[in-house]
Amino acid sequence: MMTTIVKSHDNENIVWHRHNVDKSSRAEQKKQKPCVLWFTGLSGAGKSTVAGALENRLVELGYHTYLLDGDNVRHGLCRDLGFSSEDRRENIRRIGEVAKLMADAGLIVLSAFISPHRAERQLVKDLLPEGEFIEVFVDASLDVCEKRDPKGLYKKARAGEIKQFTGIDSEYQAPVNPEVHLHAGDKTVSELVELSLHSLRKRAIIRD
Amino acid sequence: MMTTIVKSHDNENIVWHRHNVDKSSRAEQKKQKPCVLWFTGLSGAGKSTVAGALENRLVELGYHTYLLDGDNVRHGLCRDLGFSSEDRRENIRRIGEVAKLMADAGLIVLSAFISPHRAERQLVKDLLPEGEFIEVFVDASLDVCEKRDPKGLYKKARAGEIKQFTGIDSEYQAPVNPEVHLHAGDKTVSELVELSLHSLRKRAIIRD
Repeated sequence: MMTTIVKSHDNENIVWHRHNVDKSSRAEQKKQKPCVLWFTGLSGAGKSTVAGALENRLVELGYHTYLLDGDNVRHGLCRDLGFSSEDRRENIRRIGEVAKLMADAGLIVLSAFISPHRAERQLVKDLLPEGEFIEVFVDASLDVCEKRDPKGLYKKARAGEIKQFTGIDSEYQAPVNPEVHLHAGDKTVSELVELSLHSLRKRAIIRD
Repeated sequence: MMTTIVKSHDNENIVWHRHNVDKSSRAEQKKQKPCVLWFTGLSGAGKSTVAGALENRLVELGYHTYLLDGDNVRHGLCRDLGFSSEDRRENIRRIGEVAKLMADAGLIVLSAFISPHRAERQLVKDLLPEGEFIEVFVDASLDVCEKRDPKGLYKKARAGEIKQFTGIDSEYQAPVNPEVHLHAGDKTVSELVELSLHSLRKRAIIRD
Protein backbone atom coordinates (compact mmCIF):
# COMPACT_ATOMS: atom_id res chain seq x y z
CA MET A 1 0.00 0.00 0.00
CA MET A 2 1.26 3.46 -0.90
CA THR A 3 0.32 6.07 1.67
CA THR A 4 1.98 9.14 0.24
CA ILE A 5 -0.40 12.05 -0.01
CA VAL A 6 0.84 14.84 -2.21
CA LYS A 7 -0.75 18.23 -1.99
CA SER A 8 0.18 21.07 -4.25
CA HIS A 9 -1.09 24.61 -4.06
CA ASP A 10 -1.59 26.44 -7.31
CA ASN A 11 -3.06 29.77 -6.27
CA GLU A 12 -6.44 28.80 -4.97
CA ASN A 13 -6.60 25.47 -6.71
CA ILE A 14 -5.70 22.52 -4.59
CA VAL A 15 -4.83 19.33 -6.36
CA TRP A 16 -4.82 16.21 -4.25
CA HIS A 17 -3.27 13.01 -5.42
CA ARG A 18 -4.03 9.96 -3.39
CA HIS A 19 -2.88 6.39 -3.18
CA ASN A 20 -5.68 4.47 -1.65
CA VAL A 21 -5.92 1.31 0.24
CA ASP A 22 -6.76 -1.28 -2.39
CA LYS A 23 -8.06 -4.82 -2.64
CA SER A 24 -4.67 -6.45 -2.27
CA SER A 25 -3.74 -4.44 0.82
CA ARG A 26 -7.13 -5.19 2.40
CA ALA A 27 -6.67 -8.89 1.66
CA GLU A 28 -3.08 -8.87 2.92
CA GLN A 29 -4.21 -7.29 6.19
CA LYS A 30 -6.59 -10.26 6.59
CA LYS A 31 -3.94 -12.75 5.46
CA GLN A 32 -6.25 -14.33 2.91
CA LYS A 33 -7.24 -14.50 -0.73
CA PRO A 34 -10.64 -12.90 -1.32
CA CYS A 35 -13.17 -14.96 -3.23
CA VAL A 36 -16.88 -15.63 -3.62
CA LEU A 37 -18.19 -19.06 -2.66
CA TRP A 38 -21.41 -19.14 -4.65
CA PHE A 39 -23.74 -21.82 -3.27
CA THR A 40 -26.46 -22.97 -5.67
CA GLY A 41 -29.05 -25.72 -5.42
CA LEU A 42 -32.72 -26.49 -4.94
CA SER A 43 -34.74 -25.09 -2.07
CA GLY A 44 -34.14 -27.42 0.89
CA ALA A 45 -30.85 -28.79 -0.45
CA GLY A 46 -29.02 -27.19 2.46
CA LYS A 47 -27.30 -24.16 0.89
CA SER A 48 -27.79 -21.76 3.80
CA THR A 49 -27.12 -24.40 6.41
CA VAL A 50 -23.89 -25.62 4.84
CA ALA A 51 -22.75 -22.10 3.96
CA GLY A 52 -23.43 -20.98 7.56
CA ALA A 53 -21.59 -23.95 9.04
CA LEU A 54 -18.69 -23.46 6.63
CA GLU A 55 -18.53 -19.79 7.60
CA ASN A 56 -18.31 -20.83 11.26
CA ARG A 57 -15.37 -23.08 10.49
CA LEU A 58 -13.62 -20.46 8.35
CA VAL A 59 -13.90 -17.88 11.14
CA GLU A 60 -12.58 -20.43 13.65
CA LEU A 61 -9.62 -20.88 11.32
CA GLY A 62 -9.04 -17.11 11.38
CA TYR A 63 -10.56 -16.07 8.07
CA HIS A 64 -12.65 -12.94 7.55
CA THR A 65 -15.96 -13.78 5.92
CA TYR A 66 -19.44 -12.60 5.10
CA LEU A 67 -22.53 -14.62 4.25
CA LEU A 68 -25.11 -13.16 1.88
CA ASP A 69 -28.46 -14.89 1.96
CA GLY A 70 -32.15 -14.20 1.73
CA ASP A 71 -32.27 -13.05 5.34
CA ASN A 72 -30.00 -10.08 4.86
CA VAL A 73 -30.74 -9.18 1.24
CA ARG A 74 -34.42 -9.67 0.44
CA HIS A 75 -35.75 -7.16 2.96
CA GLY A 76 -33.00 -4.64 2.34
CA LEU A 77 -31.07 -4.14 -0.88
CA CYS A 78 -33.62 -6.06 -2.95
CA ARG A 79 -36.80 -5.06 -1.15
CA ASP A 80 -38.12 -3.36 -4.29
CA LEU A 81 -37.94 -6.59 -6.30
CA GLY A 82 -40.67 -9.15 -6.78
CA PHE A 83 -40.57 -12.62 -8.27
CA SER A 84 -40.94 -12.00 -12.00
CA SER A 85 -38.14 -13.42 -14.18
CA GLU A 86 -36.78 -9.94 -14.66
CA ASP A 87 -36.80 -9.17 -10.93
CA ARG A 88 -35.19 -12.49 -10.07
CA ARG A 89 -32.42 -11.78 -12.55
CA GLU A 90 -31.93 -8.29 -11.11
CA ASN A 91 -31.88 -9.82 -7.62
CA ILE A 92 -28.98 -12.10 -8.57
CA ARG A 93 -27.21 -9.27 -10.40
CA ARG A 94 -27.27 -7.03 -7.32
CA ILE A 95 -26.14 -9.85 -5.05
CA GLY A 96 -23.29 -10.48 -7.49
CA GLU A 97 -22.30 -6.81 -7.41
CA VAL A 98 -22.37 -6.74 -3.61
CA ALA A 99 -20.35 -9.95 -3.47
CA LYS A 100 -17.82 -8.27 -5.76
CA LEU A 101 -17.61 -5.23 -3.44
CA MET A 102 -17.22 -7.52 -0.42
CA ALA A 103 -14.40 -9.40 -2.17
CA ASP A 104 -12.87 -6.01 -3.00
CA ALA A 105 -13.01 -5.37 0.75
CA GLY A 106 -10.75 -8.42 1.11
CA LEU A 107 -13.39 -10.80 2.44
CA ILE A 108 -14.20 -14.40 1.69
CA VAL A 109 -17.83 -14.07 0.67
CA LEU A 110 -20.35 -16.88 0.87
CA SER A 111 -23.69 -16.55 -0.87
CA ALA A 112 -26.64 -18.89 -0.61
CA PHE A 113 -29.37 -18.43 -3.21
CA ILE A 114 -31.12 -20.98 -5.41
CA SER A 115 -29.83 -19.04 -8.46
CA PRO A 116 -31.35 -21.61 -10.82
CA HIS A 117 -30.09 -20.27 -14.14
CA ARG A 118 -26.65 -20.86 -15.60
CA ALA A 119 -26.68 -17.49 -17.36
CA GLU A 120 -27.15 -15.61 -14.07
CA ARG A 121 -24.37 -17.51 -12.35
CA GLN A 122 -22.16 -16.87 -15.36
CA LEU A 123 -23.00 -13.16 -15.09
CA VAL A 124 -21.73 -13.13 -11.50
CA LYS A 125 -18.64 -15.12 -12.47
CA ASP A 126 -17.90 -12.58 -15.19
CA LEU A 127 -17.97 -9.75 -12.63
CA LEU A 128 -15.05 -11.27 -10.76
CA PRO A 129 -11.38 -11.75 -11.58
CA GLU A 130 -10.35 -15.20 -12.82
CA GLY A 131 -10.41 -17.78 -10.05
CA GLU A 132 -12.40 -15.75 -7.54
CA PHE A 133 -15.81 -17.23 -8.33
CA ILE A 134 -16.13 -20.64 -6.71
CA GLU A 135 -19.35 -22.36 -7.67
CA VAL A 136 -20.53 -24.69 -4.90
CA PHE A 137 -23.25 -27.06 -6.07
CA VAL A 138 -25.33 -28.28 -3.15
CA ASP A 139 -26.69 -31.31 -4.91
CA ALA A 140 -29.73 -33.02 -3.46
CA SER A 141 -32.47 -34.58 -5.55
CA LEU A 142 -35.87 -32.97 -5.84
CA ASP A 143 -37.25 -36.00 -4.05
CA VAL A 144 -34.99 -35.51 -1.04
CA CYS A 145 -35.61 -31.75 -0.93
CA GLU A 146 -39.34 -32.18 -1.19
CA LYS A 147 -39.33 -34.74 1.62
CA ARG A 148 -37.33 -32.36 3.84
CA ASP A 149 -39.42 -29.32 2.85
CA PRO A 150 -38.14 -27.35 5.87
CA LYS A 151 -40.25 -24.28 5.13
CA GLY A 152 -43.30 -26.08 3.75
CA LEU A 153 -42.73 -24.44 0.38
CA TYR A 154 -42.90 -27.57 -1.76
CA LYS A 155 -46.27 -28.38 -0.23
CA LYS A 156 -47.53 -24.92 -1.16
CA ALA A 157 -46.04 -25.19 -4.65
CA ARG A 158 -47.73 -28.57 -5.19
CA ALA A 159 -50.99 -27.05 -4.00
CA GLY A 160 -50.55 -24.25 -6.54
CA GLU A 161 -50.23 -21.62 -3.81
CA ILE A 162 -46.75 -20.70 -5.00
CA LYS A 163 -46.18 -20.36 -8.73
CA GLN A 164 -42.91 -20.66 -10.61
CA PHE A 165 -41.30 -22.69 -7.86
CA THR A 166 -37.88 -24.03 -8.81
CA GLY A 167 -37.98 -27.78 -9.39
CA ILE A 168 -41.77 -27.89 -9.61
CA ASP A 169 -42.91 -25.55 -12.35
CA SER A 170 -39.68 -23.67 -12.94
CA GLU A 171 -36.41 -25.15 -14.16
CA TYR A 172 -33.27 -25.67 -12.11
CA GLN A 173 -30.20 -25.72 -14.33
CA ALA A 174 -27.56 -27.72 -12.50
CA PRO A 175 -23.96 -26.49 -12.74
CA VAL A 176 -22.00 -28.22 -15.48
CA ASN A 177 -18.57 -28.07 -13.91
CA PRO A 178 -18.82 -26.64 -10.38
CA GLU A 179 -15.61 -25.98 -8.46
CA VAL A 180 -17.13 -27.76 -5.46
CA HIS A 181 -19.74 -30.48 -5.85
CA LEU A 182 -21.44 -31.46 -2.60
CA HIS A 183 -23.64 -34.54 -2.66
CA ALA A 184 -25.94 -33.25 0.01
CA GLY A 185 -28.65 -35.90 -0.05
CA ASP A 186 -27.02 -38.37 2.31
CA LYS A 187 -24.29 -36.56 4.21
CA THR A 188 -24.22 -34.64 7.46
CA VAL A 189 -23.53 -30.93 7.58
CA SER A 190 -20.17 -31.61 9.23
CA GLU A 191 -19.19 -33.96 6.42
CA LEU A 192 -20.21 -31.40 3.78
CA VAL A 193 -18.21 -28.70 5.57
CA GLU A 194 -15.12 -30.92 5.68
CA LEU A 195 -15.50 -31.75 1.98
CA SER A 196 -15.79 -28.04 1.20
CA LEU A 197 -12.69 -27.19 3.23
CA HIS A 198 -10.76 -29.97 1.51
CA SER A 199 -11.79 -28.60 -1.87
CA LEU A 200 -10.85 -25.02 -0.92
CA ARG A 201 -7.44 -26.16 0.31
CA LYS A 202 -6.81 -28.09 -2.88
CA ARG A 203 -7.56 -24.94 -4.87
CA ALA A 204 -5.31 -22.87 -2.57
CA ILE A 205 -8.26 -20.67 -1.62
CA ILE A 206 -7.38 -21.38 2.00
CA ARG A 207 -4.11 -22.51 3.55
CA ASP A 208 -3.36 -26.06 4.60
CA MET B 1 -19.83 -16.83 18.77
CA MET B 2 -21.77 -20.06 19.20
CA THR B 3 -20.52 -22.83 16.97
CA THR B 4 -22.70 -25.73 18.03
CA ILE B 5 -24.37 -27.42 15.13
CA VAL B 6 -27.20 -29.68 16.11
CA LYS B 7 -28.47 -32.21 13.67
CA SER B 8 -31.46 -34.39 14.40
CA HIS B 9 -32.84 -37.17 12.24
CA ASP B 10 -36.57 -37.59 12.20
CA ASN B 11 -37.18 -40.37 9.72
CA GLU B 12 -36.10 -38.81 6.48
CA ASN B 13 -36.48 -35.24 7.65
CA ILE B 14 -33.30 -33.60 8.69
CA VAL B 15 -33.62 -30.48 10.78
CA TRP B 16 -30.52 -28.39 11.09
CA HIS B 17 -30.19 -25.73 13.70
CA ARG B 18 -27.34 -23.38 13.27
CA HIS B 19 -25.65 -20.67 15.27
CA ASN B 20 -24.00 -18.43 12.79
CA VAL B 21 -21.16 -16.07 12.94
CA ASP B 22 -22.81 -12.73 13.60
CA LYS B 23 -22.04 -9.05 13.47
CA SER B 24 -20.54 -8.88 16.93
CA SER B 25 -18.25 -11.87 16.38
CA ARG B 26 -17.09 -10.46 13.05
CA ALA B 27 -16.39 -7.10 14.69
CA GLU B 28 -14.64 -8.73 17.65
CA GLN B 29 -12.39 -10.64 15.28
CA LYS B 30 -11.37 -7.28 13.80
CA LYS B 31 -11.08 -5.66 17.24
CA GLN B 32 -13.27 -2.74 16.26
CA LYS B 33 -16.72 -1.23 16.40
CA PRO B 34 -18.41 -1.30 12.98
CA CYS B 35 -19.87 1.96 11.74
CA VAL B 36 -20.61 3.96 8.62
CA LEU B 37 -18.75 7.23 8.11
CA TRP B 38 -21.08 8.98 5.70
CA PHE B 39 -19.27 11.82 3.94
CA THR B 40 -21.52 14.47 2.42
CA GLY B 41 -20.75 17.77 0.72
CA LEU B 42 -20.66 19.62 -2.56
CA SER B 43 -18.84 18.30 -5.61
CA GLY B 44 -15.21 19.35 -5.22
CA ALA B 45 -15.40 19.78 -1.43
CA GLY B 46 -12.96 16.90 -1.00
CA LYS B 47 -15.20 14.02 0.16
CA SER B 48 -13.44 11.24 -1.76
CA THR B 49 -9.99 12.66 -1.11
CA VAL B 50 -10.47 13.03 2.63
CA ALA B 51 -12.32 9.71 2.94
CA GLY B 52 -9.51 7.97 1.01
CA ALA B 53 -6.80 9.57 3.14
CA LEU B 54 -8.72 8.76 6.33
CA GLU B 55 -9.08 5.16 5.18
CA ASN B 56 -5.32 5.00 4.67
CA ARG B 57 -4.73 6.18 8.23
CA LEU B 58 -7.33 3.82 9.68
CA VAL B 59 -5.72 0.84 7.94
CA GLU B 60 -2.29 1.97 9.17
CA LEU B 61 -3.79 1.95 12.67
CA GLY B 62 -4.95 -1.63 12.14
CA TYR B 63 -8.63 -1.09 11.35
CA HIS B 64 -10.55 -3.02 8.71
CA THR B 65 -12.32 -0.65 6.34
CA TYR B 66 -14.08 -0.26 3.03
CA LEU B 67 -14.66 2.88 0.99
CA LEU B 68 -17.79 3.14 -1.15
CA ASP B 69 -17.67 5.85 -3.78
CA GLY B 70 -18.74 6.61 -7.31
CA ASP B 71 -15.84 4.61 -8.73
CA ASN B 72 -16.95 1.28 -7.33
CA VAL B 73 -20.73 1.75 -7.28
CA ARG B 74 -21.93 3.71 -10.30
CA HIS B 75 -20.71 1.23 -12.91
CA GLY B 76 -21.69 -1.82 -10.90
CA LEU B 77 -24.52 -2.07 -8.40
CA CYS B 78 -26.17 1.13 -9.64
CA ARG B 79 -25.41 0.86 -13.34
CA ASP B 80 -29.11 0.69 -14.17
CA LEU B 81 -29.79 4.06 -12.53
CA GLY B 82 -29.80 7.45 -14.21
CA PHE B 83 -29.91 10.93 -12.75
CA SER B 84 -33.64 11.54 -12.22
CA SER B 85 -34.66 12.44 -8.66
CA GLU B 86 -36.10 8.98 -8.24
CA ASP B 87 -32.97 7.25 -9.50
CA ARG B 88 -30.73 9.41 -7.32
CA ARG B 89 -32.79 8.48 -4.30
CA GLU B 90 -32.63 4.79 -5.22
CA ASN B 91 -28.86 5.17 -5.71
CA ILE B 92 -28.44 6.44 -2.15
CA ARG B 93 -30.82 3.80 -0.80
CA ARG B 94 -28.79 0.96 -2.34
CA ILE B 95 -25.52 2.46 -1.13
CA GLY B 96 -27.05 2.70 2.34
CA GLU B 97 -28.11 -0.95 2.21
CA VAL B 98 -24.66 -2.04 1.08
CA ALA B 99 -23.04 0.08 3.82
CA LYS B 100 -25.32 -1.69 6.29
CA LEU B 101 -24.23 -5.12 5.01
CA MET B 102 -20.57 -4.05 5.17
CA ALA B 103 -21.05 -2.87 8.78
CA ASP B 104 -22.75 -6.21 9.47
CA ALA B 105 -19.55 -7.77 8.12
CA GLY B 106 -17.77 -5.95 10.97
CA LEU B 107 -16.14 -3.27 8.83
CA ILE B 108 -15.71 0.46 9.30
CA VAL B 109 -17.37 1.71 6.14
CA LEU B 110 -16.61 5.06 4.54
CA SER B 111 -18.90 6.43 1.86
CA ALA B 112 -18.33 9.50 -0.27
CA PHE B 113 -21.34 10.76 -2.21
CA ILE B 114 -22.76 14.27 -2.50
CA SER B 115 -26.04 12.92 -1.02
CA PRO B 116 -27.56 16.42 -1.06
CA HIS B 117 -30.87 15.67 0.65
CA ARG B 118 -31.44 15.41 4.38
CA ALA B 119 -34.23 12.89 3.90
CA GLU B 120 -31.95 10.47 2.03
CA ARG B 121 -29.24 10.71 4.65
CA GLN B 122 -31.87 10.19 7.32
CA LEU B 123 -33.06 7.10 5.44
CA VAL B 124 -29.56 5.63 5.62
CA LYS B 125 -29.22 6.59 9.29
CA ASP B 126 -32.50 4.81 10.01
CA LEU B 127 -31.15 1.59 8.46
CA LEU B 128 -28.40 1.41 11.05
CA PRO B 129 -28.39 0.78 14.79
CA GLU B 130 -28.14 3.85 17.04
CA GLY B 131 -24.69 5.39 16.95
CA GLU B 132 -23.41 3.57 13.86
CA PHE B 133 -24.21 6.32 11.35
CA ILE B 134 -21.57 9.04 11.56
CA GLU B 135 -22.38 11.98 9.33
CA VAL B 136 -19.21 13.71 8.13
CA PHE B 137 -19.92 17.11 6.62
CA VAL B 138 -17.14 18.13 4.24
CA ASP B 139 -17.94 21.79 4.31
CA ALA B 140 -16.49 24.00 1.61
CA SER B 141 -18.33 26.94 0.09
CA LEU B 142 -19.74 26.78 -3.40
CA ASP B 143 -17.26 29.49 -4.33
CA VAL B 144 -14.27 27.41 -3.21
CA CYS B 145 -15.60 24.24 -4.85
CA GLU B 146 -16.31 26.01 -8.10
CA LYS B 147 -12.82 27.52 -8.17
CA ARG B 148 -11.27 24.08 -7.59
CA ASP B 149 -13.61 22.38 -10.09
CA PRO B 150 -11.30 19.32 -10.27
CA LYS B 151 -13.42 17.53 -12.87
CA GLY B 152 -14.56 20.61 -14.80
CA LEU B 153 -18.16 19.86 -13.81
CA TYR B 154 -19.07 23.32 -12.52
CA LYS B 155 -17.93 24.82 -15.81
CA LYS B 156 -20.21 22.41 -17.67
CA ALA B 157 -23.08 23.10 -15.27
CA ARG B 158 -22.69 26.87 -15.73
CA ALA B 159 -22.67 26.34 -19.49
CA GLY B 160 -25.90 24.39 -19.16
CA GLU B 161 -24.27 21.17 -20.36
CA ILE B 162 -25.12 19.43 -17.08
CA LYS B 163 -28.56 19.95 -15.62
CA GLN B 164 -29.64 19.60 -12.01
CA PHE B 165 -26.12 20.07 -10.72
CA THR B 166 -25.96 20.32 -6.94
CA GLY B 167 -25.18 23.86 -5.82
CA ILE B 168 -25.99 25.36 -9.22
CA ASP B 169 -29.53 24.43 -10.17
CA SER B 170 -30.20 21.77 -7.55
CA GLU B 171 -30.24 22.28 -3.81
CA TYR B 172 -27.64 21.06 -1.33
CA GLN B 173 -29.16 20.64 2.12
CA ALA B 174 -26.32 20.99 4.61
CA PRO B 175 -26.37 18.69 7.65
CA VAL B 176 -27.97 20.30 10.68
CA ASN B 177 -25.99 18.52 13.35
CA PRO B 178 -23.29 16.35 11.76
CA GLU B 179 -21.21 14.11 14.02
CA VAL B 180 -18.08 15.39 12.28
CA HIS B 181 -17.92 18.86 10.73
CA LEU B 182 -14.86 19.45 8.56
CA HIS B 183 -14.20 23.00 7.41
CA ALA B 184 -12.59 21.92 4.20
CA GLY B 185 -12.16 25.26 2.47
CA ASP B 186 -8.86 26.25 4.02
CA LYS B 187 -7.29 23.14 5.51
CA THR B 188 -4.94 20.51 4.15
CA VAL B 189 -6.01 16.90 3.71
CA SER B 190 -3.69 15.87 6.54
CA GLU B 191 -5.31 18.39 8.86
CA LEU B 192 -8.80 17.18 7.93
CA VAL B 193 -7.77 13.57 8.53
CA GLU B 194 -6.37 14.45 11.96
CA LEU B 195 -9.55 16.34 12.84
CA SER B 196 -11.62 13.33 11.77
CA LEU B 197 -9.53 10.92 13.82
CA HIS B 198 -9.82 13.21 16.84
CA SER B 199 -13.58 13.27 16.44
CA LEU B 200 -13.80 9.48 16.05
CA ARG B 201 -11.69 8.96 19.18
CA LYS B 202 -13.87 11.35 21.16
CA ARG B 203 -16.92 9.35 20.14
CA ALA B 204 -15.16 6.08 21.01
CA ILE B 205 -15.54 4.89 17.42
CA ILE B 206 -11.82 4.21 17.42
CA ARG B 207 -9.45 3.62 20.35
CA ASP B 208 -7.11 6.26 21.73
